[in-house]
Amino acid sequence: MIIVMKPEATKQQLDRVLTKLATVGLKVHLSEGSTRTIIGVIGDKRFIAQMPIEAMDGVEKMVPVTVDYKLVSREFKQENTIVDVGGVLIGGSHLVVMAGPCAVESREQLLQSAEIVKKAGAQFLRGGAYKPRTSPYAFQGLEVQGLEILAEAREKTGLKIVTEVVDVDSVSVVCDYADMLQIGSRNMQNFQLLKTVGKTNKPVLLKRGLSATINEWLNAAEYIMSEGNYNVVLCERGIRTYEEYTRNTLDLSAVAAAKNISHLPIIVDPSHGTGRWELVAPMSRAGIAAGADGLMIEVHPNPAEALSDGKQSLTPENFTILMQEITSIAGIMGKTLA
Amino acid sequence: MIIVMKPEATKQQLDRVLTKLATVGLKVHLSEGSTRTIIGVIGDKRFIAQMPIEAMDGVEKMVPVTVDYKLVSREFKQENTIVDVGGVLIGGSHLVVMAGPCAVESREQLLQSAEIVKKAGAQFLRGGAYKPRTSPYAFQGLEVQGLEILAEAREKTGLKIVTEVVDVDSVSVVCDYADMLQIGSRNMQNFQLLKTVGKTNKPVLLKRGLSATINEWLNAAEYIMSEGNYNVVLCERGIRTYEEYTRNTLDLSAVAAAKNISHLPIIVDPSHGTGRWELVAPMSRAGIAAGADGLMIEVHPNPAEALSDGKQSLTPENFTILMQEITSIAGIMGKTLA
Amino acid sequence: MIIVMKPEATKQQLDRVLTKLATVGLKVHLSEGSTRTIIGVIGDKRFIAQMPIEAMDGVEKMVPVTVDYKLVSREFKQENTIVDVGGVLIGGSHLVVMAGPCAVESREQLLQSAEIVKKAGAQFLRGGAYKPRTSPYAFQGLEVQGLEILAEAREKTGLKIVTEVVDVDSVSVVCDYADMLQIGSRNMQNFQLLKTVGKTNKPVLLKRGLSATINEWLNAAEYIMSEGNYNVVLCERGIRTYEEYTRNTLDLSAVAAAKNISHLPIIVDPSHGTGRWELVAPMSRAGIAAGADGLMIEVHPNPAEALSDGKQSLTPENFTILMQEITSIAGIMGKTLA
Amino acid sequence: MIIVMKPEATKQQLDRVLTKLATVGLKVHLSEGSTRTIIGVIGDKRFIAQMPIEAMDGVEKMVPVTVDYKLVSREFKQENTIVDVGGVLIGGSHLVVMAGPCAVESREQLLQSAEIVKKAGAQFLRGGAYKPRTSPYAFQGLEVQGLEILAEAREKTGLKIVTEVVDVDSVSVVCDYADMLQIGSRNMQNFQLLKTVGKTNKPVLLKRGLSATINEWLNAAEYIMSEGNYNVVLCERGIRTYEEYTRNTLDLSAVAAAKNISHLPIIVDPSHGTGRWELVAPMSRAGIAAGADGLMIEVHPNPAEALSDGKQSLTPENFTILMQEITSIAGIMGKTLA
Repeated sequence: MIIVMKPEATKQQLDRVLTKLATVGLKVHLSEGSTRTIIGVIGDKRFIAQMPIEAMDGVEKMVPVTVDYKLVSREFKQENTIVDVGGVLIGGSHLVVMAGPCAVESREQLLQSAEIVKKAGAQFLRGGAYKPRTSPYAFQGLEVQGLEILAEAREKTGLKIVTEVVDVDSVSVVCDYADMLQIGSRNMQNFQLLKTVGKTNKPVLLKRGLSATINEWLNAAEYIMSEGNYNVVLCERGIRTYEEYTRNTLDLSAVAAAKNISHLPIIVDPSHGTGRWELVAPMSRAGIAAGADGLMIEVHPNPAEALSDGKQSLTPENFTILMQEITSIAGIMGKTLA
Repeated sequence: MIIVMKPEATKQQLDRVLTKLATVGLKVHLSEGSTRTIIGVIGDKRFIAQMPIEAMDGVEKMVPVTVDYKLVSREFKQENTIVDVGGVLIGGSHLVVMAGPCAVESREQLLQSAEIVKKAGAQFLRGGAYKPRTSPYAFQGLEVQGLEILAEAREKTGLKIVTEVVDVDSVSVVCDYADMLQIGSRNMQNFQLLKTVGKTNKPVLLKRGLSATINEWLNAAEYIMSEGNYNVVLCERGIRTYEEYTRNTLDLSAVAAAKNISHLPIIVDPSHGTGRWELVAPMSRAGIAAGADGLMIEVHPNPAEALSDGKQSLTPENFTILMQEITSIAGIMGKTLA
Repeated sequence: MIIVMKPEATKQQLDRVLTKLATVGLKVHLSEGSTRTIIGVIGDKRFIAQMPIEAMDGVEKMVPVTVDYKLVSREFKQENTIVDVGGVLIGGSHLVVMAGPCAVESREQLLQSAEIVKKAGAQFLRGGAYKPRTSPYAFQGLEVQGLEILAEAREKTGLKIVTEVVDVDSVSVVCDYADMLQIGSRNMQNFQLLKTVGKTNKPVLLKRGLSATINEWLNAAEYIMSEGNYNVVLCERGIRTYEEYTRNTLDLSAVAAAKNISHLPIIVDPSHGTGRWELVAPMSRAGIAAGADGLMIEVHPNPAEALSDGKQSLTPENFTILMQEITSIAGIMGKTLA
Repeated sequence: MIIVMKPEATKQQLDRVLTKLATVGLKVHLSEGSTRTIIGVIGDKRFIAQMPIEAMDGVEKMVPVTVDYKLVSREFKQENTIVDVGGVLIGGSHLVVMAGPCAVESREQLLQSAEIVKKAGAQFLRGGAYKPRTSPYAFQGLEVQGLEILAEAREKTGLKIVTEVVDVDSVSVVCDYADMLQIGSRNMQNFQLLKTVGKTNKPVLLKRGLSATINEWLNAAEYIMSEGNYNVVLCERGIRTYEEYTRNTLDLSAVAAAKNISHLPIIVDPSHGTGRWELVAPMSRAGIAAGADGLMIEVHPNPAEALSDGKQSLTPENFTILMQEITSIAGIMGKTLA
């Protein structure tokens, strides 16, 4: 059960509700958002059912929740959420494309990528300044220098910037440069990081964990939202299975499922999802047809020379073809790139 | 390496090639198809490279093969295969829909299903007369009686019939009634069954095994083709993963991958692939967008009363809506239902 | 619910029970074993609960079953089953070791293997005469010639022979030569094959499918037992997971679980389970400690030259060391090699 | 390639090596441990092979590394590492048992658990003060109050304390109370956390991630060690597979594999690994037989009332029986509890 307070509810009204709940032994989780407070009630639901909470001053509504996430669910909010990233809208009738190299490798490589991406019609430039790497000895990214290059590319092209935050310490500096924060797969259950970005006002792109269930993924989004940041976009990027032909198994049924369960926008990353550039175009089309609100695509000016993930990166030519291909499928799904 | 003999090659010419190969210790696999013989050469490739086989009488061509399947691969045949099932074409610019209940439960249920399916525009009626069941005590199908009902439905509607052969013994009787034989997931590596249907002239729908790799699946098709039956259609139906929200994880990247590797048509079964009727429509759209040549869909006059798989079956109304929805995506993919 | 008839029950008594069940619409599955008949009752349990079946002539007992397999379960039979293979006992306090090469490659290779295996103290010689292979062009085994070599090895050493039946057609000839029939992983749900071996009186070694659940595996055993052959031994051989370091993931918790759920003996195959010879010894020890009744081990006179699975085969020296190592762990588990 | 400096090497000697490497464009990763510095060399190995680094002052040895982790590997250190936790040794001939409840729920529950654990012969008390939970609304642990209770239990019993650090912020306070830091599965690739504990001098228990490969797991250990903390103990706790009978699939082959690849001690957690208390004893025996150096077991005074993981917790009685059972298997493996 969650109790949604009115935006104008006073501290006193909130306290009275909390006191009421405490009298019957119920614990609460307070989400004090920028506009209003949400009370997640923890404990035996039978007690609350008998109390006239909804009639108390300052209470907007009570929402019974049958799943363990609340703010994320369509039970809580029926209409689709549209996330506004500096004027670019994600969700609803808007199709968003985020493209760029896996990692920011140099100023030249990134600016060149940005131009390609912009020209082909994407709205976001992606590129890692901080890279989470399996080995401590692998290239860990250009860090702040990478962020500066990303910001320069934004200035030159008008593209929005989405880039990964790999830990709590870098959230603040990434917020200074980026338009949208990406939480990577390995960090999907880094709860401290989720809570930290939940306290910012930056939109968050939340990638599904390598072997996360849909339930765990939506709960990760709930961690962010329970801190007051409701601008969450989900990203399906493939799960770990026995199949070795593809790097991961892109789970498009999770896109359709998440759309049913949650009001949040969801995009698809077929580059990591398949690990093979020749599968990126068909899986991009399929993702949109499954109901996704956008794509995240790896593009590199010269994939053969990429420091990471070259095998799954599109050439500029192939990216341009892809952008044309998806336009008509997007149209059928009632979405436009804009 | 495979050696393709000319259709008009004589037994004597074939023998001379075989003798030649034997002199350097190479073993062979003979595929004596109805129109011509194919020699799969097993052993050290260096020997054959030095022999003037291609110049021998009766030899059409030699095809070097870099994967362990041969007849299945695009290296062997570049153009898309179109399988003709009594006039209904599968592959190329043709979109095929096979629909019907999981199992033939009764004459009434099946004839009613057939009408729904026909009216909505599908070309094939599906329905199990023989059911492979995890437990020996579960309903195993109406068997021959079920086949008779399927045949009656064909007469009444003109729909083609696709139904499963669960073992070698029933191949002959199923051939008497059905237009197309289905090999189920559990039997994907039942090599005797594969070889048996490979010796018939019936088109075969080969479902991917529960946890088969793409490589194993294509090799299963190779078993059928190596016996001379080239009318094989692949069917992706979901793989087994850790995710429990869906019954299986529909692997659409395998559709795109199989299209690249092989010339065979491929269809998608989103009903078994997801196990949830509400995901069937989005995954049908996604399957076609990924490049599939058709769909296999469970439809039941009354899903709530189905003896099996009711949870994943569409109602007649939802199936009709689905058929309309896929038409436009098929159009973009250059395919038409007909 | 299952109804167990007395060994001396007459046909007339059986018919009366069946008629009684039919009057309330219950269907049955008859298991007419060599010594007695078992009636598996299918349908609404409430009807049977109210009928005085247990009081009818010829009925020994009624066993309520809460899982979908019946004869396999400890609910049906509490004491451990001991399977007698020509005097060698499997189960209870007996530890059995089955060893030998993956495939019978030649008379010399097999006789040499048999000697090694015998000398080190194993009771069974394993070796494939029929090999189920992913590719139709791979070595498919020496077939009958292989069976003859196995029989010769038995004569020379006194070892029992366990070898795979890959299809229904070869069951009869394999029964002529082997002491125990092996059902391989790919055939675990080849129900026709299960039923066919269920009609023989040969003990059966049932390998777990590549991605079979414990429930499916026990149901496969039920298929065999429901045809009257109760001499079934389970074999855990690794399941398919995302981990690529090992060929499969040996699931020893399935051994402990199957021991709890079922009365059947169970052995472990660490050779296929890991795919790496250096892990065979530790996993053999672990398997016995988990409660297994025996091991199936690949041993080859010269693993580097094996036609298949050389990487996972032990040398004669390492096999001899292994046999010594497991003796003391077997002792702690109350088992002896004999 | 890694370069190990002598303990007495001066800053100047180190600088000269670094300069040398820089002249040919090689990058380095410096691990400045408490006793000596290790240089991980990144880049083209051919350059370094031609340089007389080993002859330079201050250099102890150069170690070529064929895997992507270095300090973790047996190539770097052949003999087994023994980790000393306040006098209790882990590794080598020592068998360690860490036991206690999943979470610290109350002072009474924990002190009672500690007594049970101590009496049965374990050396470590486990118990979560900080709990990483899928849902933000689930019980998150007693936090500092929980740590205080753990410390009190140590005083009363002499048991060592191992407890989880869930984020960077709590590392310092957990270090104040605990003898050993646990990194949980969800945080196995929380690289910032790994580096933070790598900078402490506390021994670290590193659980394998839910779907981590052995390679990723060892690289996670490398992250810790590359910061100078060499006191790492690995913990296998089950991986995510399709099997639903057990909570996870305990991968004991990973224990045997890690023992071969790495010199680090490794323990097994059969409680999380199986999720079923009745499988804990057989899998504990199996783990030790596979070569593990110890166990982590959930024990609760009253499992039926546990706030979390009651289903997988042993009763005091069953834990006592388990401790007796493992003694003899430990003996065979050359290990003693002490």
